[in-house]
Amino acid sequence: MDKTISVVGHTAIDLLFDVEHISCHNESYPIIDYHEYFGGGAANIAVGIATLGGKCQLISAVGDDFASSGYEDYLMSLGVDLSLLYKCKGQKVTKAFVFTDREHNQSTYFHWGASALLKYFEPPEVDFVHLATSECSFNARTAKKAGFVSFDPGQDLVTYNRKDLETILEHTDILFANRHEIKRVCEMTDRSFEELKESIDIIVVTYDSEGSMIHTDDAQYCIPVVPVKAVDPTGAGDAYRAGFLLAFTRGYDVATCGKIGATVASFAVEVVGCQVKLPTWEMMQERFETHFGKLQR
Amino acid sequence: MDKTISVVGHTAIDLLFDVEHISCHNESYPIIDYHEYFGGGAANIAVGIATLGGKCQLISAVGDDFASSGYEDYLMSLGVDLSLLYKCKGQKVTKAFVFTDREHNQSTYFHWGASALLKYFEPPEVDFVHLATSECSFNARTAKKAGFVSFDPGQDLVTYNRKDLETILEHTDILFANRHEIKRVCEMTDRSFEELKESIDIIVVTYDSEGSMIHTDDAQYCIPVVPVKAVDPTGAGDAYRAGFLLAFTRGYDVATCGKIGATVASFAVEVVGCQVKLPTWEMMQERFETHFGKLQR
Repeated sequence: MDKTISVVGHTAIDLLFDVEHISCHNESYPIIDYHEYFGGGAANIAVGIATLGGKCQLISAVGDDFASSGYEDYLMSLGVDLSLLYKCKGQKVTKAFVFTDREHNQSTYFHWGASALLKYFEPPEVDFVHLATSECSFNARTAKKAGFVSFDPGQDLVTYNRKDLETILEHTDILFANRHEIKRVCEMTDRSFEELKESIDIIVVTYDSEGSMIHTDDAQYCIPVVPVKAVDPTGAGDAYRAGFLLAFTRGYDVATCGKIGATVASFAVEVVGCQVKLPTWEMMQERFETHFGKLQR
Repeated sequence: MDKTISVVGHTAIDLLFDVEHISCHNESYPIIDYHEYFGGGAANIAVGIATLGGKCQLISAVGDDFASSGYEDYLMSLGVDLSLLYKCKGQKVTKAFVFTDREHNQSTYFHWGASALLKYFEPPEVDFVHLATSECSFNARTAKKAGFVSFDPGQDLVTYNRKDLETILEHTDILFANRHEIKRVCEMTDRSFEELKESIDIIVVTYDSEGSMIHTDDAQYCIPVVPVKAVDPTGAGDAYRAGFLLAFTRGYDVATCGKIGATVASFAVEVVGCQVKLPTWEMMQERFETHFGKLQR
């Protein structure tokens, strides 16, 4: 029986627009086409875990359009436990509006919406939690109460204060970050990477298309990416974490967890949209075995 | 019994965003808040007429989100006849995304969506039609078949070709335009305003906050605005046309039609959103009589 993985952070909707030109001050340009995608780091990870067949629970703040957009029905159909969601009346789901022109220039607007209210809520006690990009004080309070903490500050790191970050790190068992985020975590807490490693059991550093490196107390493992025809790297990190965490709770060694994460990520990058192409466990296993050999238990 | 007024043109949804800064090339800024408004020139006029208690029919092309956005239910609840709508599967409702910063700079993106398909459709035969901002060839073909034609090219005038414009003008009984549009209509068709007046029974030229001027064969009438605390001028023109046209079909003289239009417009500008505050006939009549004296029949 799988352990429930509680995932804390953003549930968001991304609107991606193809436009003739980026419209600056007092300009107006036509939209060629646009599409709405379900996203948000926490929801991406929860969907990844649920699609792989794991048990997960999403802890997010959402607004009225969570239901009207169809996002709620979609998550329920995947079996994601939504019983701990904060449904905020009169609020909107967190949203990103991204305009991309023919030369791949982008203009982005971000609306915190309901997620901004997380700071006012008292988090529940959970056993195994992953703290995704989220409001920092809510993440800190969740970390204090949780049995096991996985943490991925992501791009929200810039909004963190030192006190909350140190509280979270003190309780963190697994830390996921890219090389820039690791550097910033060290700078913000005045410690070296070696010092960080001493206090955290597992640190996973991701290097985009160059793969990832897993640091444990006594070893480090280089995990290559699974090569595919990548269309859009967005969502790769969330897919990796979904695969890693489910494998971890299922008792795989960390190197295998990393390879499973890399395999799940290879599906996500084949299409636009973070949740559009995520694999079942069987699909993951088939591709894993093509690249890494027999998946042992 | 009121005559049915068929209104041809855009049914659109406007998303208005308050942002910290306009996001130019490869920039990202937060959204303070945003709201969705039902709009589109033709739909605004139809809603205006229906709210006043008139009979109207909307001829627009709409997409799948016409129903999911709640726009369809809303128009039906007002009694707007939607039987001649073109519901285009797999298409989106025409949309405008308008970002406004703290210094009132704007960045706008416009998506034609389903409206772009109007050029492929054969318009129905209608008795009394108002051609609002719309696809020019569809407007031209509608004008040829209609019993009575009112025409307001609006900002779509820049997309018109001379042939379609001349076809429409040949059948036009009432022309609505602001001073810039009138100038452009004259330039595009190589005629003076005097020549235009000779071929069209009623020309209504609007001058924003300075009111309007109605030109008929033998007279001209200055119609002042009804002074109110204006919040947003968007939608004033459509509200004016709704009031004018319903009054016209109810047999009022053109000067009274203009005053009724100005009164209806005074409600629209008191709030943000073209369809948010439109008056019933009784509300209009009360404000009309405060400003212009007894509304005679």
